[in-house]
Amino acid sequence: MSLVSAKEILDGKVAIGSAVTLAGWVRTRRDSKAGFSFLAINDGSCFNNVQAVVSKDLENYENEVLKLTTSCSVVVEGTLVESQGQGQSCEIQASAVKVLGFVEDPDTYPMSAKRHSVEYLRQYAHLRPRTNLMGAVMRIRNTLAYAIHSFFQENGFMWVSTPLITASDCEGAGEMFTVTSLDLNNVPKDDKGGVDYSQDFFGRHAYLTVSGQLNVETYACAFSKVYTFGPTFRAEDSNTSRHLSEFWMCEPEMAFTDLDGCAEVAEKLLKYVFKKVLELRRDDMEFIVQRVDSDAINRLEKFINSDFAKVDYTDAIDILLKCDKKFEYPVAWGIDLQSEHERYLAEEHFKSPVVVKNYPKDIKAFYMRMNDDGKTVAAMDVLAPGIGEIIGGSQREDRLELLDKRIEEMGLNKDAYWWYRDLRRYGSVPHSGFGLGFERLIVYITGVGNVRDAIPFPRTPKNADF
Amino acid sequence: MSLVSAKEILDGKVAIGSAVTLAGWVRTRRDSKAGFSFLAINDGSCFNNVQAVVSKDLENYENEVLKLTTSCSVVVEGTLVESQGQGQSCEIQASAVKVLGFVEDPDTYPMSAKRHSVEYLRQYAHLRPRTNLMGAVMRIRNTLAYAIHSFFQENGFMWVSTPLITASDCEGAGEMFTVTSLDLNNVPKDDKGGVDYSQDFFGRHAYLTVSGQLNVETYACAFSKVYTFGPTFRAEDSNTSRHLSEFWMCEPEMAFTDLDGCAEVAEKLLKYVFKKVLELRRDDMEFIVQRVDSDAINRLEKFINSDFAKVDYTDAIDILLKCDKKFEYPVAWGIDLQSEHERYLAEEHFKSPVVVKNYPKDIKAFYMRMNDDGKTVAAMDVLAPGIGEIIGGSQREDRLELLDKRIEEMGLNKDAYWWYRDLRRYGSVPHSGFGLGFERLIVYITGVGNVRDAIPFPRTPKNADF
Repeated sequence: MSLVSAKEILDGKVAIGSAVTLAGWVRTRRDSKAGFSFLAINDGSCFNNVQAVVSKDLENYENEVLKLTTSCSVVVEGTLVESQGQGQSCEIQASAVKVLGFVEDPDTYPMSAKRHSVEYLRQYAHLRPRTNLMGAVMRIRNTLAYAIHSFFQENGFMWVSTPLITASDCEGAGEMFTVTSLDLNNVPKDDKGGVDYSQDFFGRHAYLTVSGQLNVETYACAFSKVYTFGPTFRAEDSNTSRHLSEFWMCEPEMAFTDLDGCAEVAEKLLKYVFKKVLELRRDDMEFIVQRVDSDAINRLEKFINSDFAKVDYTDAIDILLKCDKKFEYPVAWGIDLQSEHERYLAEEHFKSPVVVKNYPKDIKAFYMRMNDDGKTVAAMDVLAPGIGEIIGGSQREDRLELLDKRIEEMGLNKDAYWWYRDLRRYGSVPHSGFGLGFERLIVYITGVGNVRDAIPFPRTPKNADF
Repeated sequence: MSLVSAKEILDGKVAIGSAVTLAGWVRTRRDSKAGFSFLAINDGSCFNNVQAVVSKDLENYENEVLKLTTSCSVVVEGTLVESQGQGQSCEIQASAVKVLGFVEDPDTYPMSAKRHSVEYLRQYAHLRPRTNLMGAVMRIRNTLAYAIHSFFQENGFMWVSTPLITASDCEGAGEMFTVTSLDLNNVPKDDKGGVDYSQDFFGRHAYLTVSGQLNVETYACAFSKVYTFGPTFRAEDSNTSRHLSEFWMCEPEMAFTDLDGCAEVAEKLLKYVFKKVLELRRDDMEFIVQRVDSDAINRLEKFINSDFAKVDYTDAIDILLKCDKKFEYPVAWGIDLQSEHERYLAEEHFKSPVVVKNYPKDIKAFYMRMNDDGKTVAAMDVLAPGIGEIIGGSQREDRLELLDKRIEEMGLNKDAYWWYRDLRRYGSVPHSGFGLGFERLIVYITGVGNVRDAIPFPRTPKNADF
């Protein structure tokens, strides 16, 4: 059987009058007294359903068609015709409806055709993609992921898969999971009584990475423009709407690029992917506006049309100190900006996305480039109205002496960084990069309030179901 | 500074006579007696270097330019002119050469401009992308990855990120790593004396996944056509040229698709990505032909122009039994085909890629669809001349009763598969999918003999360096 997709039909790619075969799942069935049934069929290729009009004359009408319920799988053969009814421009006049699979006991089917809470849906992560909400979010996720790849590929960046298993316990960006093949019932000990990791799979203590940045810098120093896009991990016991133990991150890294160049790429990337979502996932975004967040489309359009403001951290602190707003967390030079501060800057002061630059060195990582003032480093955060920080990045310290100084100041082990330091010994170049949390970006776009609803199978403390 | 890339220059995107600024790393320096130096500059954007002609009249000629060695980083400003010399059509007449970074002690620089063994290069995984070989392989890897995404996106597939951390110990495809946040010096015990995983991060024993297939099937049953493309793991102590502990895999899954439909997608995918590599990475492939495998381009071209042969496993066994070839592993119905058998079929018998279908159920996984003969399942392998198995897939068992029977026969725990079984209870559909090991595909394309040279930072037993 040669199938057409609902998307092809609804995008007008199939001529009226054509013979068509559509396979999918019934969303709803409505029976008319005139001896017809209307099946709304969804195949996941787009948000909207295709309507099939089924006459009682079909031989399996009584026995099968009238027993169809939500999520039954069917193949409909027929002719594509202009619709007489409201709500769709075309529909299938069915000449045959083949039922592939019924739903066992429709009364207890967990995804019945009514509204369920997101908390309820999470218990059925294997069935929730069949709902309008998760269908829309996951199609947006897909479009966004491919848009990220397309942006970088079109702009000469090379994708690099940095390793997830790492023996560097020196990343410092968060708590790490241990990866082991040791029998935990019988952990081998060394002669000092500690764990004998020499007997472990990798011959030493191995972890799941918290960032591909240090690794991808090595590739930026050979291919100039590179990016990672893959999973990262945090073993933090954070049960919040913004934290996952396993999440996807995109980390571009650019040689011959300073902090301003880095901010420019961040701005172009965000605008590019938002445009793609509005262009390619209009149907899903319209549903989001209707059911989740009435401002969703408007927010993206405003973002795309904004010029990013730019402000030094020091000036941003001044703005926060001088404004009338009462903040929960007190403002002073040297603090890490809190969400309330970030949102004030983006939403109330600048009324646009804003790049805050040159943060105090003491609140930032060792690898960020020291500014001439000796107090700040070339770090940047992109703050977006409605969410706060959406991107964090920096120019990297490319001067070996200054890098070593920071490694020592922060009490890190210089030897562990031998290969990272090599990049500064052999043809060092100015380079910059940033990190973009993929699920947080999806939350920003769709307005779903929790990153657990932005990834197919969320991993969080005490939860690795499915 | 507004940079152009070497690729833009060499692709003819920059007009002769233009002022250009190129940043990159010196590959070689050649000094002419006439008072010029020729710098071959590579920025990683393509295989070939751009030649810069530097006159002794530049103020830093004696002090800096004459000290440039392999991997020094420079910014060259000048005019793009037609080249007088051989080997390039255009070159930069430099008006300024800014040295960004010298190489500390060129005599001990590990990536000096000579041929190094691949084993040697692996010790410098952070510097090896600067070599011709690894540069070519990694650019091919990038082109291939994006081609995989593009193929699926253009054909209406949705990318799904399946979880890497899993609590299912029931995947059965290989040995799994444990993921834990327990203190291994002090593993908590339950009242039976076993490990108390309830105190672990996820509240139970968690692992790194060996395949996203079972998870992605849930999305195929909502979106029809989906694929994963991400890392997978094996805790197997296999020190071979074909095994990595962490590798990337692509797993498409298609609803309403039987085994033949599945084989068709596999054929289209491979041909599509090979075409993209030949089209977009011609320079890198020409280097591969010259230095690694003289048949590399020819092999792909033949593959693209082949019609895939199709043969039942039972008939393939007959062919192997009747041929004159002596095999190391004896042939009999029921065996798993060995590499020597696969290669005989593809290289000597069919002389083309071949799809072997319908394998004995006893050598295949529980989830493959039982054929009517009760002896074989709807599994397939795609065998390619020159390598053997390149893709493995199957139609999935979509009938609950038969699935349960197999789960029981194989001694698996039915309850653990509750969500997988749900797909067969609620609107079950025929569906199929396959797995494509990404690094093995790169090995096939490039002829590098070892998967460790097909991934930036290989993880293998006793090795998680960098």
